[in-house]
Amino acid sequence: MTTRLPFLLNWHAYPYHAPIFVAKELGYFEQEGINLAVLEPTDPSDVTELVGTGRADIGLKAMIHTIAGRVRGFPLKALGMLLDEPPTGLLYSNKNNNISDVQDLKGKRIGYVGEFGKYILDDLLRKNAVNPADVKAVRVGMKVPNALASGLIDAGIGLSNCQLIEVENDSAGAGFLKFEESMGIHCCFCSVLYITNDKFLKEKPQLAQGFMRAVKGGTDFTHQKPEQAFEVLCKALPRMRDETSRKIFHASLPYISRDLATKEKDWYEVKEYMEHLKLLNTGFDIEQCYTNSLVPQEAIA
Amino acid sequence: MTTRLPFLLNWHAYPYHAPIFVAKELGYFEQEGINLAVLEPTDPSDVTELVGTGRADIGLKAMIHTIAGRVRGFPLKALGMLLDEPPTGLLYSNKNNNISDVQDLKGKRIGYVGEFGKYILDDLLRKNAVNPADVKAVRVGMKVPNALASGLIDAGIGLSNCQLIEVENDSAGAGFLKFEESMGIHCCFCSVLYITNDKFLKEKPQLAQGFMRAVKGGTDFTHQKPEQAFEVLCKALPRMRDETSRKIFHASLPYISRDLATKEKDWYEVKEYMEHLKLLNTGFDIEQCYTNSLVPQEAIA
Repeated sequence: MTTRLPFLLNWHAYPYHAPIFVAKELGYFEQEGINLAVLEPTDPSDVTELVGTGRADIGLKAMIHTIAGRVRGFPLKALGMLLDEPPTGLLYSNKNNNISDVQDLKGKRIGYVGEFGKYILDDLLRKNAVNPADVKAVRVGMKVPNALASGLIDAGIGLSNCQLIEVENDSAGAGFLKFEESMGIHCCFCSVLYITNDKFLKEKPQLAQGFMRAVKGGTDFTHQKPEQAFEVLCKALPRMRDETSRKIFHASLPYISRDLATKEKDWYEVKEYMEHLKLLNTGFDIEQCYTNSLVPQEAIA
Repeated sequence: MTTRLPFLLNWHAYPYHAPIFVAKELGYFEQEGINLAVLEPTDPSDVTELVGTGRADIGLKAMIHTIAGRVRGFPLKALGMLLDEPPTGLLYSNKNNNISDVQDLKGKRIGYVGEFGKYILDDLLRKNAVNPADVKAVRVGMKVPNALASGLIDAGIGLSNCQLIEVENDSAGAGFLKFEESMGIHCCFCSVLYITNDKFLKEKPQLAQGFMRAVKGGTDFTHQKPEQAFEVLCKALPRMRDETSRKIFHASLPYISRDLATKEKDWYEVKEYMEHLKLLNTGFDIEQCYTNSLVPQEAIA
C-alpha cells in the first residue's frame, strides 16, 4: 500500500532534478510507501501557493520564495536543500558583448523570471547608481534563453550552471556577470529547497521523513555514480538525452547538496537581504521557515 | 482579484493543448477571475487521483479513465471535451514493417501507456485469437516514440495525430494499425475530456463555468486563426517551436472539439466496452460521469 504524494518541481524538469528522478526510478520512494506524483509547473510563480495550500504535499522552491510565501500566510517549511547556491547573474549572448558592467544595462531590456527577480534586479541597479526606470525589465518566466535567442531581451537573470549553458548552446558563446562578484549581492537566496507545508508535516511526519530518506538515497547515487544517474534520468525523461542537458547535469553536480541540510547562516543572510529589500519586517522569526530534523544521517542505498 | 486554479494536463504539454494555452496567453481566464496554474504530469497515471482528490481543481483525462476513476471512488465529472476521438492504434517504425495485422504481434514487445492500455491490448489480442501470453507487453508511460526509437519495443499504442508523427519523424517512416478498422474496437474511449470533481463543481460553479467559457474562447481562436494560435502556443512554450510539433498541431486541429460538448452516445458506447472488459458492472449510472450544462453557447472572443 503506497500513498500518492503530489510533488511539484520548481521549474520544468531539469538535469539538476536528477536525485528525485533517480530515487523514483530506483524504487526508493516505493520502499518508503510513497508513490511520488512528480508534476511540472508551466509557471514557476505558481509553486509557493500550491504547496502552501496543500495542493502539492512537497515541492521545490528557492529560499527567498519560501520565506516570502511564509510572510504572505502560506505555512511553508523547508525540509532540506536540493541545490546549494549556484552562481546567479546576468547572462547575455555574444551579440550583446557590449555588456560588461551594470552601467551598461542602461537602455537595455533585461529578462527576469518572476516578481522577486524584479526586486533583485532593481536593487542591483540602485546599488550601482543606475535608475531602474532607465532599464526595461521584462518578465519572461522560464524563457530567458529563448527570449535572448529571439532578441526579445538583451540580457536576463539566470544560473551559470543552467541557463548560461543553454544560451552558450543557442548562440555559440555567452557572457555572464555574476551577481556576487560584480554586484555585491550574495546568492544563497537562489538555493533550491525541498519545501512542504506545516499541515502535511504535522499530519504525515512519517511520509515527510520517508521522502527525505528517499531523496538522500537518490542524491548519494547521483554523486557516487553520476554517469549512471544521468542515464536513469534520461530513461525517465527521454527529452533529457542531449548534449546541452548532459552539460547542465555535470555543471550542476558540484551544487547538488550532499548532506541536504540548509544552513542557519544562509537563512539569516537572506533574511537580512529581504529586510533590505523591504520584503520583511525586522523581528520576523526566520526559524519557522525550516527544519533540518528530517535530514537523514544515513543514506538508504 | 483572481483565484489560482491548479489545472493538470493529461500528458506533458502537447500541441493539441493549444486552446488552453491560447486562452491563458490572451487573458480569457483572467477575464473570468481565474489564474490558471497549468501543471504537467510526469506520469499520466497520476491525473485521475489528483483531480479526484481535489489536488487539482480541473484536469484533462480520457473518457475511459474518467469512468474508471469514478468507479474507484474518485468523484470525477467531465465538463466537456478538448479532443474528439482521434484514430488510435498500434504504431511501429519502418524497421518493423513485418507487422501488418494482429497475428504478427506474436512474440513481439508492445508498449502501452498505463493500466488501461494493457486491458485494451489484451482484448484486441483475444478478439484476434492471439493469446496475450504470447505477446510481451511493456508499460512505457509517455515514452512510446522513444521506446520504439531505442528498440525497447517493436510496436506501441498511440494516436495517429500525435505519436505516429513523432515516430515518423524519428525513423523516417512508420506504420499504423488503426484499432477501429483493423481490430473492431471503437475509439471514443480515447477522447480527451475536461474533468473536475463533484466538490469543486458544487462549491465553485461560477469558476467552473468561467473556465469553460475561457477554453471555448481559446478553442474558437484556435479554429479561426490556427497559425496565430500555434504562434501563441510557441510563445508560451518555446519547446513547441519545431516542425514535428507544428505537424502534430495541424494533424490534431480536426479533432479539437468545436462545441466542447461530450456525446451521450459515446458515453454509452464506452460503458458497454468497459462492461465487456469487466471493468464495470452492469447497472452503473454512466450519467453521473458528465455534464454538458457548463458548455458555453457563445464564445467570449
